[in-house]
Formats: sequence, structure tokens, C-alpha cells
Amino acid sequence: MELYDIVDVADRLGIIAFAVSGVAVGIRARLDLYGLLALGLVTAIGGGVTRDIMLGDIPRTLLITDYLLYATGTSVLAIVAGVIGWDAPGPVMRTADAVGTGAFAVTGALLAREAGLEWPAGIVLAIITATGGGILRDVLAREVPRVLHAELNATAAAAGGLVAVLLAPERLDVAAVAGASVAALISGAGHVGLIRLPALTREE
Amino acid sequence: MELYDIVDVADRLGIIAFAVSGVAVGIRARLDLYGLLALGLVTAIGGGVTRDIMLGDIPRTLLITDYLLYATGTSVLAIVAGVIGWDAPGPVMRTADAVGTGAFAVTGALLAREAGLEWPAGIVLAIITATGGGILRDVLAREVPRVLHAELNATAAAAGGLVAVLLAPERLDVAAVAGASVAALISGAGHVGLIRLPALTREE
Amino acid sequence: MELYDIVDVADRLGIIAFAVSGVAVGIRARLDLYGLLALGLVTAIGGGVTRDIMLGDIPRTLLITDYLLYATGTSVLAIVAGVIGWDAPGPVMRTADAVGTGAFAVTGALLAREAGLEWPAGIVLAIITATGGGILRDVLAREVPRVLHAELNATAAAAGGLVAVLLAPERLDVAAVAGASVAALISGAGHVGLIRLPALTREE
Repeated sequence: MELYDIVDVADRLGIIAFAVSGVAVGIRARLDLYGLLALGLVTAIGGGVTRDIMLGDIPRTLLITDYLLYATGTSVLAIVAGVIGWDAPGPVMRTADAVGTGAFAVTGALLAREAGLEWPAGIVLAIITATGGGILRDVLAREVPRVLHAELNATAAAAGGLVAVLLAPERLDVAAVAGASVAALISGAGHVGLIRLPALTREE
Repeated sequence: MELYDIVDVADRLGIIAFAVSGVAVGIRARLDLYGLLALGLVTAIGGGVTRDIMLGDIPRTLLITDYLLYATGTSVLAIVAGVIGWDAPGPVMRTADAVGTGAFAVTGALLAREAGLEWPAGIVLAIITATGGGILRDVLAREVPRVLHAELNATAAAAGGLVAVLLAPERLDVAAVAGASVAALISGAGHVGLIRLPALTREE
Repeated sequence: MELYDIVDVADRLGIIAFAVSGVAVGIRARLDLYGLLALGLVTAIGGGVTRDIMLGDIPRTLLITDYLLYATGTSVLAIVAGVIGWDAPGPVMRTADAVGTGAFAVTGALLAREAGLEWPAGIVLAIITATGGGILRDVLAREVPRVLHAELNATAAAAGGLVAVLLAPERLDVAAVAGASVAALISGAGHVGLIRLPALTREE
């Protein structure tokens, strides 16, 4: 598979996963129907748009109409599920979040490499792509961004991005799958409490 | 009229309208004089800057010095009005908001078309241009963005953007006026309660 | 010294100063270790990244790997200092903030000039570069951005940017030092209460 095929698949996976996450946070914040749709869309495409802008490209979301369909379709399904009483059970949410983090981290790292940037920039873009949508989601819903205090997603994205950049010269598709898996596993391990970052201050 | 003449006029209309809205929200948030000026400027130019960055252009606000004069002048006037006790009467605020939404929606849609993007990207840019300044305004003033729960502005921008994109092949100035009018009418109807999006959850 | 040498030095100064400020705000917001690192990095590089994106460039932070090292290294040192009980004494914080404001203001103004923009755009970029990181810092930590109500940093950046743009045709290094000094002095004077912007509303 070529780079842009890989990015296409990973972007779509990430969009679907994060649209679910955006709607779920919006339901908890008691937004109206439009607010839910908006939060689903922003969460789904926010990280990728930021990535593309930082690389000096027109956002792929604007160029590939499919992306908007995926983001909108998934958000609508998640809203319908919410309306009929499905309240985003923990395992589904955690899986979606881990999958999205893995998929987006790999796109950031590989596109940075394609743009001729050095590996630290690849890691930065992996983190920004994987966490950007969630940060926008939390800021808009007026919550402290989870990534600042309750998630390992940035660490996960950094590790997955590094794996992807290191393996990319060998075989691009293997690099993508390995990087995404590492990021998803760390994210998931963080969500279920298997790994925990030490807190500097305890009382809260 | 050519495209860039239309965008120039619409941008100035939008800047004036949203500067008023930014200052009014800042007064309610009890900001000091500088904070009011900053919020007026950010609200006035935020949507257009985001639009231009997504299209890969240097923001028109930086290229056309006039824009900054309009944003600053209107903000100062609105601050003076606030100081002498004018507290942003509802009808003025709602009109400004509807006009700004209509004007900015059309610029987003038409510039996306000019850049060769497909119509769904035009709608996305219409929404981003029309709501971007207000989202920044509300986030900076630490309020839940109105567009997520109390406005029809995103729906209005989408409808107006679609009208503008559909009519653009016929006659550009008609497309702009029709699109802006549709968006402004829907936004205004939302403000006075004529149209309402169903809420998913009732208690708040 | 050439323009890009000056920008390099000023960027590094600003990155170091604002990394300290980001970590200090994070400690007050009781973030965990990763949150502190994230807030230090975002505050340090946020203004410069926004500046470069508005100029249509790939952010220098992604191109010059050094920048990330400075931001990460300073953040880690500040976190360690926080862990061993150093709680960001006022004078250190205020000095760091004033130095960062001065350094970043000058880079915004001079890079805008280099890009052929007019002087009002130079002032806007000076403000955005000098305050962008702090605004992101405060939004992520869920505080009202200080620049909206408790700082003179935007005024300071505007004044310093203007000085830098005016002197740049004479001698670039003198312009940079003079502009940064003016901005730092006004910022510092604001912090210690020597200068104060009038408040529009008193009760809070």
C-alpha cells in the first residue's frame, strides 16, 4: 500500500472513532441536537485539519468529500443511539478512543516524514493529530481537556508515532499497523488503569 | 461585481456586525477596556482568518489593512456605547448577529468554490467562517459556545452557503445576496424563537 | 545579524520563558506530570506556531528540532523545580513573562515585515505571537485568559512591535533589541501595577 492509501484508511478509522467520542461527551454536556452534531464533527475532523494546516496543506477533509460523510454519518448514528437510551457504555467508548488515537497518530507521523521533517516533528504531529480533536471537544464542552489530566493518549500517540517513523523505511504498511497498535494499546491500558502517570499533586 | 469585490463587501459587513457582538459579550463578562477591545477584534476577524488559513492563504485581514480599521473602529464605538450605559439591546444584537452570519457564510462558500473545492467543502467553510469568530469569543469569555446550544447560526450558514454555491454559476452577485439573506433570515428566526432545534435532553 | 538569526535567538528566549509560565499555571491547576509537560510545551510553542501558520509557513518548531528540545528541557526543569517545592515565586514568573512577551513580539513584527505585509499587520502578528501561547495555556487550564483582564501583554506587544517595525529599516538588530525591551518593560510595569488599564465595570 502507498502512503496516501494508508492515510486514507487510517483517517477514516479515526474519524469514525472520534465522532462517537464527540457525541458521547456532548450528551453528557446536555447539548441540543445541533450541538451534538457539531461536537461529533469537530472531534472527528479537528485533529486531521490541524495536522494538515501545520503541514501547509489544504485540509484533506475539504478535499475528500467522503471524510465529511463518514463524520456526519457516524455522528448521526451515535446521536440516534443516544436518543434511544444507549449511554455510551465504557468499553465501547474506550475502544473507540484507543482506535482513534492509534489511527490518527500514525497519519501525523507518516505525513510529517513524507514532508521531509525530522523525527521529533513526526512525534509532535502524531500527538497533535491524535489529541487535537479531543482537545477541541473538551474545550467546547467546557471541560478540562482529558489529555491534560486523565488520559495517556498523548504518550500513546508519541510512542506509536515513533514506532511508525522508525519502521517506515522498511515497509510502510507494517509501520502503520505497528505504530497504530502500540498507540492503541497504551491508550487502552491507560483507560482501564493498567498504566498511570504519577500525579504531582494529590488532593483535587 | 467580481468575486473579490463581493468578498470585500461581505467581509466588512461581517466584521462590523461581529465586532459589536464581541464587545457586548465582553461587557457581560465584565472585561476591562483592553479585554473588550480584544474580544471585539477576535470575534470580528476570527472566522475569516480561520477560513483563509484552511484555504492555504495568508489571512485577508493581514493583507487588507482596512479590515483592521473596521474591526478596531467598530469595537471602540461599541465600547464607548457600553461605557455610556447602552447595554446592547436585544434587537440590535440579534440583527448584528444575523447580518454577520449571512455575510460571512457567503464568503466561505464562494471562496471554497473559487478554490476548486466541491460543494460539501463549501458548506463546511460557510459554517466555519460564520461561526468561527463567535466560538472564539465564547471560549475566551468562558461561556459554552452559543452555537452548540442556543443558536441556529450553523444551520443558517449551511443553508445560506448551499444557496450561494448553487446560484454562483448563474450570477455571482445574486448568489451572494440570496445566500446571505437566507442565512440571515434563519439566524434571525432562531434568535426570536420562530425556529427551534429539538433538544435531546430536557432538564438543564 | 540577519533577520533569521535574530528570530532564532528571540524564539528560543521566548520558548524558555513561556515554558516556565505554562508549567507554573499547570501546577496551580493541579495537573498531573503529563499535563504539566503538555501545558509547558503548548505555552512555549503556541504563539510561534500560530504566527507561522498565519504567514503561510510550516511552523519553525517543526523545522528546527532544537526548538522542541528547548521547550521540553525547560518544561522538565520547571516541573522538577515544582516537585521539590519551588512554587514559582512572583518575581521569577513576572520576569519570564515579560522577557517572553518582548522576544515573541519582535519575531511577529519582523517576520510580518519580511513577508511584505504593512505595519498594522506587523502589530497584529506581534500581539498574536506574544499572547497566543498564553491564551492557549489559560483556555486549556480553564481560566479566563489573563490577557483579557489582568495583563498589559497585548498592549506591550503592540508597542514593542511598532518600535521594531519603525526601526527595522535602519538596523535590524537594534530594532529587535529596542522593540523587545519596550514590550518587556510595559509587560513588567503592568505586572507590578505601575501601569493599569481602566476597568469598564468595577464590581466583580
